[in-house]
Amino acid sequence: MEDIIEEGKFVYIYLDERRQYLVQPKPNSKLATDLGEIDYNKIINQPFGYKGKTHLGADYYCLKPTTGDIMIGVKRKTTIVYPKDLGYLIFETAIGPGSRVIEVGTGSGALTYFLSKTVGPQGKVYSYERNEEFLKNAKENLEKLGCINIEFFLQDVSEKGFLQKEIDAVFVDVPEPWEIVPRAKPALKGGHYLVCWSPNIEQVKKTVDSLKENDFIRIKISEILQREILVRERGIRPKERGITHTAYLISACKIFSHPETSA
Amino acid sequence: MEDIIEEGKFVYIYLDERRQYLVQPKPNSKLATDLGEIDYNKIINQPFGYKGKTHLGADYYCLKPTTGDIMIGVKRKTTIVYPKDLGYLIFETAIGPGSRVIEVGTGSGALTYFLSKTVGPQGKVYSYERNEEFLKNAKENLEKLGCINIEFFLQDVSEKGFLQKEIDAVFVDVPEPWEIVPRAKPALKGGHYLVCWSPNIEQVKKTVDSLKENDFIRIKISEILQREILVRERGIRPKERGITHTAYLISACKIFSHPETSA
Amino acid sequence: MEDIIEEGKFVYIYLDERRQYLVQPKPNSKLATDLGEIDYNKIINQPFGYKGKTHLGADYYCLKPTTGDIMIGVKRKTTIVYPKDLGYLIFETAIGPGSRVIEVGTGSGALTYFLSKTVGPQGKVYSYERNEEFLKNAKENLEKLGCINIEFFLQDVSEKGFLQKEIDAVFVDVPEPWEIVPRAKPALKGGHYLVCWSPNIEQVKKTVDSLKENDFIRIKISEILQREILVRERGIRPKERGITHTAYLISACKIFSHPETSA
Amino acid sequence: MEDIIEEGKFVYIYLDERRQYLVQPKPNSKLATDLGEIDYNKIINQPFGYKGKTHLGADYYCLKPTTGDIMIGVKRKTTIVYPKDLGYLIFETAIGPGSRVIEVGTGSGALTYFLSKTVGPQGKVYSYERNEEFLKNAKENLEKLGCINIEFFLQDVSEKGFLQKEIDAVFVDVPEPWEIVPRAKPALKGGHYLVCWSPNIEQVKKTVDSLKENDFIRIKISEILQREILVRERGIRPKERGITHTAYLISACKIFSHPETSA
Repeated sequence: MEDIIEEGKFVYIYLDERRQYLVQPKPNSKLATDLGEIDYNKIINQPFGYKGKTHLGADYYCLKPTTGDIMIGVKRKTTIVYPKDLGYLIFETAIGPGSRVIEVGTGSGALTYFLSKTVGPQGKVYSYERNEEFLKNAKENLEKLGCINIEFFLQDVSEKGFLQKEIDAVFVDVPEPWEIVPRAKPALKGGHYLVCWSPNIEQVKKTVDSLKENDFIRIKISEILQREILVRERGIRPKERGITHTAYLISACKIFSHPETSA
Repeated sequence: MEDIIEEGKFVYIYLDERRQYLVQPKPNSKLATDLGEIDYNKIINQPFGYKGKTHLGADYYCLKPTTGDIMIGVKRKTTIVYPKDLGYLIFETAIGPGSRVIEVGTGSGALTYFLSKTVGPQGKVYSYERNEEFLKNAKENLEKLGCINIEFFLQDVSEKGFLQKEIDAVFVDVPEPWEIVPRAKPALKGGHYLVCWSPNIEQVKKTVDSLKENDFIRIKISEILQREILVRERGIRPKERGITHTAYLISACKIFSHPETSA
Repeated sequence: MEDIIEEGKFVYIYLDERRQYLVQPKPNSKLATDLGEIDYNKIINQPFGYKGKTHLGADYYCLKPTTGDIMIGVKRKTTIVYPKDLGYLIFETAIGPGSRVIEVGTGSGALTYFLSKTVGPQGKVYSYERNEEFLKNAKENLEKLGCINIEFFLQDVSEKGFLQKEIDAVFVDVPEPWEIVPRAKPALKGGHYLVCWSPNIEQVKKTVDSLKENDFIRIKISEILQREILVRERGIRPKERGITHTAYLISACKIFSHPETSA
Repeated sequence: MEDIIEEGKFVYIYLDERRQYLVQPKPNSKLATDLGEIDYNKIINQPFGYKGKTHLGADYYCLKPTTGDIMIGVKRKTTIVYPKDLGYLIFETAIGPGSRVIEVGTGSGALTYFLSKTVGPQGKVYSYERNEEFLKNAKENLEKLGCINIEFFLQDVSEKGFLQKEIDAVFVDVPEPWEIVPRAKPALKGGHYLVCWSPNIEQVKKTVDSLKENDFIRIKISEILQREILVRERGIRPKERGITHTAYLISACKIFSHPETSA
């Protein structure tokens, strides 16, 4: 039951507030830091929580990477959804273990990883991406993370739509969500949710218009702001500089609009 | 594969922005709204997304409740963790399907429900509560939600500690998290995370002090602010009034500090 | 040099956090509160800071109204500019004692009052309003406040423009600021500033477009959020509910665009 | 009545969003920018709003510096009060033309400049500073700005208190405001206001305690957050990074507590 650091699997090496590294240790290899080298042979097969010393004598700790560490730390070729944003959006859907979900815009695979975890081995993630290079990178990232419940599609959804039906949620991470909305409608179960996010307000407007035209209701738009608080001997206060905007978050529920399905 | 509205199971009835109800429909029973009555016999066994009319002719829609709807809507005897806060905190841990987690402060069971979903049928939630009435209410709530992977303990953790070891994450929702920290230490796996939240800054200070004394590292404190955006024909703007504070969120990682545990 | 409470002049009566009143005391008259009556005869001619007792024995204090109290407290027929917003905007102009400023949208006169104070007896405020009833109410408010450096105009500026030239700043508080911008251009000194505020983002877009077309530069758009902090024995924390949006604030600088004025 | 750029007086030179300079032009001197040199001889005696070209042909504009530009741009040896914060605080006092105010912590003189403008030629600013070097720098800054209504004191107020009585407002900008509060009490008029600001929450707690002990009432604590909005062809959205904390702002009103002053 102990959690052991394995060769090639992610570990989060923590020296101090400024020196933190998400790595996949290989035997006979080292991590170079400005406080000394860390010999991977020493940490492979140790339990998580292991405390070691660099060759210059600095303490380091081997932590389990959080879900957020992995989402932010995977090899990226695209921007990411921030934990604060995705964390909120998950609660705006009804998905859980066993759900079947669609993701549009595989990107670096960070969101795919989280969806894969959320739906679990009994669930399924259908992930669509139109850029071949992005998809290749994402597949590599997700293989390393051991995700086995994902099916990938190299396809432009705005043109061809989805192959699936009776889906529990659709996650849209493309610059033009409004083009995906009419495609998501036939794929999504009645009474279930589409979520998407966009940095610009014009994108929000177009997406909301498209949602209304396609009989989505309960449309909610939010922004989530995070502020870190510093608790130190010399005083408690919020951090002085930080992220002030990531994206506007949209969620909406599909209803049946055809007379035959609703009396 | 269709999602069907079942007797006694949650459904989210939506009339318009101001009229939304989380209900558990019983046969031969009705929901009274100021736009007319909704006959539950008409909606039981219909698919989610069903559109009906009240006896006064107003449209209503039967939606799948989101995870957030259920967390906010369960019968409450205590305050709740908000989706925006819990959504963020989940990413500060490493839990997923199969994880074994502890919750301190079952409260109304809203968080318990989310943890139960997150760890799935292969995982386990150990939920501690010192108030018998709260625990009874929470158990009733969670039974209705069909959660089967939860073990409850009527126990004051600050005195007796936890019965479990090698736990993947500890969620603390009590007014004195600093009393729980030393109890969580022996229960938690090395390199894994404790998270908690408190409305007041003094609670944050005491908890951080306790975390430091108990060899937790990577201590992060955040606050998450949500602002709803209104997208309407007459203009796009943030909502004028809203929630401006819920809680400060804390996460920290347990390390081994004794030579014998990390040689 | 002492500050004395005068008959008919504003005084801020403070009983506790929930009972605070901006009043203009008249002789032989009383203020009724749920903690008892306050006899105005007792407070007229007392110094500010005076502490008295209601006829039921509750303490009250006679405070000098702050500039914010008066701006928020004047008899209103329109929405107001919040101190947090106006306070910021003042710094985005170059006005001070002796300046000549234009205000479009006299409204209730709250902003007019602040501008009148800022430019002082050597300065001048030209205030335009198209609604006769608003203007009448504002004039009454400002008379009571003893403002003597204001000239009023009952006029629709979007059609006829301004009568003044070489103005130090233009403050625009109307729903369509973009209609005022081309009128403000010939009235404003080169290198000086126009400021305005609007609740909706579409208004911001149209105003910015108009500013660019009219050779304004250094266009800045901000929003100012205020959060109150509660410092009490039982804990320090931000207030749980509050105002989350008032207006977007815009400032911009007029430049000379004609060849003859710039080599 | 035209506003002319004078030798040695502040002018704000604007090339584009990234190139903006607050300068005091001297004859036969130049400003070097990476888009070419600006010859001061060309701009002295031109009206504000003047448009010129660098020797490499780039356009530049000579703008009137805003009050904010000057507060942020003066030669600094200390941190500054931000316009968003000070702008709000001014409304929490009752000062205007003719007021007599005390400032504790002259610092770089930025706040002193604003207070000097606010109280105008009929008013007076009494500015206290314990650091000789700061005071010398501030005096130089304020001389250049032509302020004539300021009296400076090189003095540690926490020990000796103030020389003035019947003051309209006290502005406290030192790390230990709670030491100043008992000194401010006898100097301030009854019913008038003390304001201060501090980055850390512990400072707030101590100051509030001191205010309560010294019979100040109507104690308000706020924080003011500013977020810049980008309005561009490719989309409208808030800036992605920015300032997330400056200081907690406190205001409070002095009352008479002695029996002889409040019958």
